[in-house]
This record gives sequence, C-alpha cells and structure tokens, in this order.
Amino acid sequence: MRFVSVDAMMRLVHHVGVEAFLIGLAERIEDDFRRWEQFDKSPRLAAHAPNGVVELMPTADGEHYAFKYVNGHPGNARMGRQTVTAFGVLADMATGYPLMLSEMTILTALRTAATSALAAKRLARADARVMALIGNGAQSEFQALAFRALMGITELRLYDIDPSATARCAANLRKAGFSVTYCSSAEAAVLGADIVTTATADKAHATILSDNLVGEGQHINAVGGDCPGKTELAEAILHRASIFVEYPPQTRVEGEIQVLPADHAVTELWQVIAGQAPGRRSAAEITLFDSVGFAVEDFSALRHVWALLQGGDFNDELDLLADPDDPRDLYGMLMRAAPQGAGT
Amino acid sequence: MRFVSVDAMMRLVHHVGVEAFLIGLAERIEDDFRRWEQFDKSPRLAAHAPNGVVELMPTADGEHYAFKYVNGHPGNARMGRQTVTAFGVLADMATGYPLMLSEMTILTALRTAATSALAAKRLARADARVMALIGNGAQSEFQALAFRALMGITELRLYDIDPSATARCAANLRKAGFSVTYCSSAEAAVLGADIVTTATADKAHATILSDNLVGEGQHINAVGGDCPGKTELAEAILHRASIFVEYPPQTRVEGEIQVLPADHAVTELWQVIAGQAPGRRSAAEITLFDSVGFAVEDFSALRHVWALLQGGDFNDELDLLADPDDPRDLYGMLMRAAPQGAGT
Repeated sequence: MRFVSVDAMMRLVHHVGVEAFLIGLAERIEDDFRRWEQFDKSPRLAAHAPNGVVELMPTADGEHYAFKYVNGHPGNARMGRQTVTAFGVLADMATGYPLMLSEMTILTALRTAATSALAAKRLARADARVMALIGNGAQSEFQALAFRALMGITELRLYDIDPSATARCAANLRKAGFSVTYCSSAEAAVLGADIVTTATADKAHATILSDNLVGEGQHINAVGGDCPGKTELAEAILHRASIFVEYPPQTRVEGEIQVLPADHAVTELWQVIAGQAPGRRSAAEITLFDSVGFAVEDFSALRHVWALLQGGDFNDELDLLADPDDPRDLYGMLMRAAPQGAGT
Repeated sequence: MRFVSVDAMMRLVHHVGVEAFLIGLAERIEDDFRRWEQFDKSPRLAAHAPNGVVELMPTADGEHYAFKYVNGHPGNARMGRQTVTAFGVLADMATGYPLMLSEMTILTALRTAATSALAAKRLARADARVMALIGNGAQSEFQALAFRALMGITELRLYDIDPSATARCAANLRKAGFSVTYCSSAEAAVLGADIVTTATADKAHATILSDNLVGEGQHINAVGGDCPGKTELAEAILHRASIFVEYPPQTRVEGEIQVLPADHAVTELWQVIAGQAPGRRSAAEITLFDSVGFAVEDFSALRHVWALLQGGDFNDELDLLADPDDPRDLYGMLMRAAPQGAGT
C-alpha cells in the first residue's frame, strides 16, 4: 500500500507546478462530474462535537473506491492547529484492498479551489476580471490560484475580520504576481468585483454578505458555509440568485440553502458540466455556487494523485495490510512472529 | 500521528500475550457496551461490488472518534489474498485530529472473537465444554482462543467444506493445546457440542446449519452471515432460538435475521451486559448470537491498542497531517517547500 505523506504531496505538487496541478485536477473533476450517474453517492457521515465535526466522505465508481476523513474545528486556529485536516484512501473495488493512503489537507485545499474555478467557468460572466476574497484563511490563496489558472483572474480584493489574515494572504498573493487590494470591510471588497468568493470559518449563521452588496451579473462562490448551522449569506440573496449545488441531499443539510424550503429549485453542477442544464443565462443574472465539497471531488483528487505517482518517487510503502502466505492462516502468521521461546 | 503497522501489532499482541490481549479487549468491549447509550451510532456505510463489499464503520463517544475501513471479498482467498482486511483510525473529538492509524486485519480477528466469547459468557450454558467450529478460515483460531480465555473451552470439533482449511486450523489449535476432533460434516461437528460457532465466508444464503442439527440448550455463535444476501442458518432455527444482536438497525439488514420480519423480537447484547435484559433463561433454551460486527467493538479495540501503546515502543510516527507554523498559512508552507529557484 502506497503512502503519500505531507512532504511527498508537497514535492509532487511542486514537481507538476501548483497551477498545472490545479488545471489537471479540474479536468479530472470535470470528467468525473460528466459521468456523475456512475458513482455510488451518499451524503457524508458526520459526527458532531460541541466545537467541530468529523466527517467521512466515501464514494465509488465500480472500479475504484475512495473516502476522505476530514474535520472542521473553527477554534483550532486559536490553538495553532488547522481548522480543516484531512487524509484519504483510494482502494480497488475488485479486491477491496486499499491502494494508497494520502495526506489530504493540502489536497483538499487544491480540490476545493479547483471545483470553485470549474464552476465559475460555467457560472461567472466570461468577461469577469476582478474577484473579491472574503475570509483570508488557509483556503484563500488556493482559490486565487485556481481562478487565475482556469479563469485568468489576476485582480483580487481581500477582506477578513482579522487584518493579520489579510496581510498574510496579500503578501503571499502579491509574491505570486496578483494585483491585490487590501479592503477594510466586506462592502469595500465587493465593490466592482465580478466574482465574490466567501471562505470564512465560523460555525454559525453569519451574514458575510448582506443583500444590498450583491449586484447584477455577479457570481458568488460560497465556500465557507458547509455544515448545519453554518452559513455566510443573507437569505434574501438566495431568492435573487440562480443556485448551483454539488449533491442536493448533502447541500440541503449543509449549504447556504439549508435555510430554504426543501423544494427550492437548484441546479446540479454536474448537469451543467454534462450539458444537460444551462449555466449562466444572461449577463445580469446573479449566480451562486453553494459549495460544500462532495466525495466525488475527493475521489477525483485521489485518482489524480494516484496517476501522478506512477513511475515517480513520491511515495513510501506502508505496512498496513496483513498478508500471510496462506490467506486463511492469519493466526499462523501471528504465531510465527512470536519472539523466540514465547508461548501464546 | 501514531502508526501501528502489521509488524507492530504482532509485536504488541505477543508482548501482552494473545489470550491476555483477548481478555483485556473483552473487558474494554464490555465496559463500552455498558455505556452503549453514550455512543453516536449508525449502521455501517457499505459500497457493494459484484464480488465483495467495502465498508466504513464510524462511532464516537464525545471524547474519541473511531472508524474502521474493512472489506469482505470471499473470492480473494483464491487469489492468495485476505477475505477481510481492515485498518482503523482513532481521533480526538475536541480537535478533530487523528491520533493513531492502526492495522486492523489482525485486530478485527481478535475483537470479533472477543465479542463472541463475551456474548457466550451470558448466553451459553455455564457448563458448556465442547465447541463446534464450522468454517475454518482466518477467524477460526481466534474464536477458539477467545472461548478458552473467557469460557474455559478446550474441546473443539472442526469442519470446513475445504479439508485443507480444517487441517491447518487443527494443526494450529493442537499446537496451542486444544483437544481437536476433525469432522467430515457439519452434522458430525455439531454432535455433542454445547456451543456452535459458524464462521464461513460465502456471500450467499447458505445453510451451514439445518434445523434438525440444533438441539436443546445449545448456543449458536453465528459469525459468518454479515451482509445482505449472506446467511448461514436455516430460517427454522431462528424461530426456535432466543436471538441476541449488537445493533438492530444494522443486524436487520446484514445478519441472519435479515430473512425475518422487521418486528421479530430480538434482544440487544448491550442490554444483557448492562443488566437491563436477561441472557440465557433456562438450560433448555436455544440461544443465538447473530453477530455481524459493530463499530463500537472497533472503537473499543482501537482504544485498547491506544492504551497499550503508551510508554511502549510499538508505533512509528506518520507524516500525515499538514502542520504549518501559522495554521492559516497552508499555502506559505507549501511554497516554502518549493525546490530552490522554482516558480509557482
């Protein structure tokens, strides 16, 4: 079984190049969304604690099985820990044997950004040039890079309630060649933005965007609201926007639309990608990608890494699967490992 | 994050002693079953393939979270592979951070056997001396050891449709000090047995035990029927036996009782352990533990290993969790790992 450590993932991403990795990953997600109906799908399985959530996100396409373990603990940052950490496994459905264990904290940041940009290609105006980035945490730079790689966005307007977060993000993105405006409020950040990305972390119904801030023709990429009780947008915005989601049974519980009736019309992103439903229909339309993150995106990401591993030197072997010579003689394998002279 | 490899698990089990490990594990399962209502429980999440199943089994008690990945592919043995392989993770609910990744192929064999023996202590006659073991695959020796450690069973009657499986199992168990009778049919194995353990692997409705083979006072420990379409007992036996299960929402789908109406009376094992329901009520009663394996048992097993690790030298460290100095600067961590002179 192969193991992709944090270090190996970073070497792999740099070997390919960050933006090239994002483009390749977006293509793979696009391919998998196009064959959406082949996947075994279910809402992720969440275990809630007072200060966070732990989730398992499995899916399978008959050939491969993948799952991700991911937590969301907004208070972690105050203790010097990641809000979101993740790892995942790719397995072979024919034998049930896991093929690869991979870090997915970095990979999740990349796949979330790739999915956002992939959606925006269909939902934002083709002439979009300026993106507001509200919430400047661990996800924000990845969003910027994906929108440059897939949409050509180079002008950013940043805002976070914590100015030090914006300062870090702005410094990283200027170094990466973006034109960055440092804003002192969400209102200021949204001014003149064609695309508004919200990626905040509070586990609460917050109003990051109020209704009057959203104008004609904007595309809203709402990344932060992703669990029950955690939303970012004023409800009135939802009634003015055309809403696009990944997997309705999960998004209706976790996404911005959790505050709407269960029959409120939404379009599934895969249908837009497969040509079965329109994306943006007019320059004036307000579009909203209510992103919560779905297992198929992690499946795509793990398969992308798996494909890149072949022939390279980016992984270790992990002694995780017991493999006796006679598969029925698990006990015999255990006994042969006994220290010399020991009994049972 | 700690990593318990197959090799480390074998060293740990031998360090404690196999039967001592089983006794300690059974005590921990007993403690956790006694506080059953504190656990966040759901049926395991299965992905079915034509030749097998892959399952995730999560549970949490508010302090710890655990899940197991396990497959069941009966055809694997023909390719020299394990029918069942497994690994698991123990995590801290307060931070969502995984604490330990552990092999669980060996550990699952141990916890399944410990649970069976724990149930039999309440459900078999106190004077039970002879056990039939039908199905002599990877699970069988562990069952024997657990029943000796917890119930004092030393006389075994073995049968498998594959005589080479019985030969291997008999050799292993004689070496371990059991009195073993090699039987040429299930009928012969059951003769005079106080406890009948069935642990066969076929993914089909098989009749390993027909109705006339089961006599007054026997305890049946049905381990092999554990997924939809996979059962081992003639239905008539179910109507004569008092049935005990782990978690009804899962067992009604996966266990022997899948062939019965959804309202057929069963007793939950935890209620017997907690003193809220009787176990065996008379010497003549036929008792059946319809075991499918539940997430709480894996939680107990992972916590048992976690406790044994403390202060010992049985684990490695695994570089699975990205841990930037500034938790929001995941991107900066990635960039600092770039090879000298490389761009983005």
